[in-house]
Amino acid sequence: MADTRFHVAGIGNAIVDVLVHADDALLDQLGVAKGAMTLIGADDAERIYEKLPPGIECSGGSAANTMAGLAALGVRGAYVGKVGDDQLGRVFRHDITKAGVHFETPASADGAPTARCFVLVTPDAQRTMLTYLGACVELTPADVDHEMIAASAVTYLEGYLYDPPEAKRAFLEAADTAHRAGRLVALSLSDAFCVDRHRDAFRDLVHHHVDILFANQSELESLYNTRDFDEALRQVRGQATIAAITRGARGSVVVTEDEVVSVGADHVDHVIDTTGAGDLYAAGFLAGYCLGRDHPTSAILGGIAAGEIISHIGARPEKSLADLVQDKLGSLT
Amino acid sequence: MADTRFHVAGIGNAIVDVLVHADDALLDQLGVAKGAMTLIGADDAERIYEKLPPGIECSGGSAANTMAGLAALGVRGAYVGKVGDDQLGRVFRHDITKAGVHFETPASADGAPTARCFVLVTPDAQRTMLTYLGACVELTPADVDHEMIAASAVTYLEGYLYDPPEAKRAFLEAADTAHRAGRLVALSLSDAFCVDRHRDAFRDLVHHHVDILFANQSELESLYNTRDFDEALRQVRGQATIAAITRGARGSVVVTEDEVVSVGADHVDHVIDTTGAGDLYAAGFLAGYCLGRDHPTSAILGGIAAGEIISHIGARPEKSLADLVQDKLGSLT
Repeated sequence: MADTRFHVAGIGNAIVDVLVHADDALLDQLGVAKGAMTLIGADDAERIYEKLPPGIECSGGSAANTMAGLAALGVRGAYVGKVGDDQLGRVFRHDITKAGVHFETPASADGAPTARCFVLVTPDAQRTMLTYLGACVELTPADVDHEMIAASAVTYLEGYLYDPPEAKRAFLEAADTAHRAGRLVALSLSDAFCVDRHRDAFRDLVHHHVDILFANQSELESLYNTRDFDEALRQVRGQATIAAITRGARGSVVVTEDEVVSVGADHVDHVIDTTGAGDLYAAGFLAGYCLGRDHPTSAILGGIAAGEIISHIGARPEKSLADLVQDKLGSLT
Repeated sequence: MADTRFHVAGIGNAIVDVLVHADDALLDQLGVAKGAMTLIGADDAERIYEKLPPGIECSGGSAANTMAGLAALGVRGAYVGKVGDDQLGRVFRHDITKAGVHFETPASADGAPTARCFVLVTPDAQRTMLTYLGACVELTPADVDHEMIAASAVTYLEGYLYDPPEAKRAFLEAADTAHRAGRLVALSLSDAFCVDRHRDAFRDLVHHHVDILFANQSELESLYNTRDFDEALRQVRGQATIAAITRGARGSVVVTEDEVVSVGADHVDHVIDTTGAGDLYAAGFLAGYCLGRDHPTSAILGGIAAGEIISHIGARPEKSLADLVQDKLGSLT
């Protein structure tokens, strides 16, 4: 793939995370669904922030986390997402650029602030997210560099992009450009409630437009409106060319028309914060895919990257993932 | 002290920290003195940020950290400091308020941004700081609520306040108000280079206006322009009523006219980041002081609070310090 400018072009909601420690009582008080991502408006964001304990701020955003993970694995990537023209937008731009990801989307000119996600980490290491989309709703098809998409081996899209309407259009046009150029389209289903909001559209996407699907068990079950994981696997098989489905501590399952492969999770001594686990699994898997590894190896790489991210607070790698992989599997690049 | 509205009123530079992992080569490249705090201007802040890896943002500021530590020990405190009218200023206000500290200083109306401190944490857990003062230079005597100062048992001042000229005036007026009301003045010397910049003024302060002095060994040696710690101790003895001098892993020494007491450091398994160690020592010591403990117990409390802060990234407590103290010494309040 030496002729492609980037291995992966990622498009997503550009978000700064506000990480706070919380207990179940606070979740109850806020009335939010544990483990899920709930969208909130500007007024709710103010009201909820008032109720949260002191936090720390770090760059997040699902596809952005994946791109940072890919870069930490030595994979060339570019990111498209909309920040506000403000301090948190500059923080987001700094962090993703310094992570080694190409990022040139201009900041919103409309005065909308950079998106924030309140990430409530409970003592069981689960995260519950409340997202104020802010400037993300200003992402439009004009922000997508179609030459770049056409020159990238994989275009990676997060399902969350279906929440802001213009971003959804940008998503669809990018997928179309990728396919016209003979490139692949990867999709992360993002969140079970997000799948609920867009089920028919996502099912159409997965069945007709997606080459590599990432989802966790509950997202896949939501896609097919079933509580039966095997039934959901049966339905997705042969639809997306590859479906890589994560199951938390139980590892992941990679489904293609020809095979179903299960891979165990990487061992983690202390799970601190599961924020970004799915994003980093996707990074590891895509890195393996782009570098020509087989699916089981790619799934193992996904597990290694996810294992690093859940061992600390925050959704961007703290260690060199390439070194971690080197220690466990030998050189990747 | 039931008649005082607050046990401690703290005044300091209100700063958001940008924490990054760095190696010695990066410090060399930036030309900064390891372990010290260097002041930088707006242009340098931009230029240096460009050279730093991705970071995380969290509220900092020396006296603000101390106040957050006091609150975590169950001691009532108020803080005075100047943030900008911007996102990071709102983050700072949220965090210190939610830590349990009274904070009502209005944001700067002049458009100056909230101060930032780039905290470069090296693998040896040392921190090297580069501070852009931003809105801190807008702190003026008018920001100090003299009724509150007069009603607080201790007014705690950070030496860093001597860098912005108007803040220095605010500092001196607050100290004067405290003494006129029969209250105590505590000072942290902040940084050896800060002492270099203001040595004569600080020596005059310590000898004539300070009741409780906090310093580490190098700051005290800088104050008396000597490399001989015992000589520095001899000089400070009987000047400040109490001098509590920290020596890193060697614990601390409390010096009064009558006695010199050495206390060992609290045991810490893994020192991760020494940012805030001095600030939290001051919090523990002042908590003991305000709650009527003897000096050796107060020094032990300082060591416990410092031990918590150096066991993780960031300069604000992650655990309930009151619970930590309860486990080690029994109930404090």
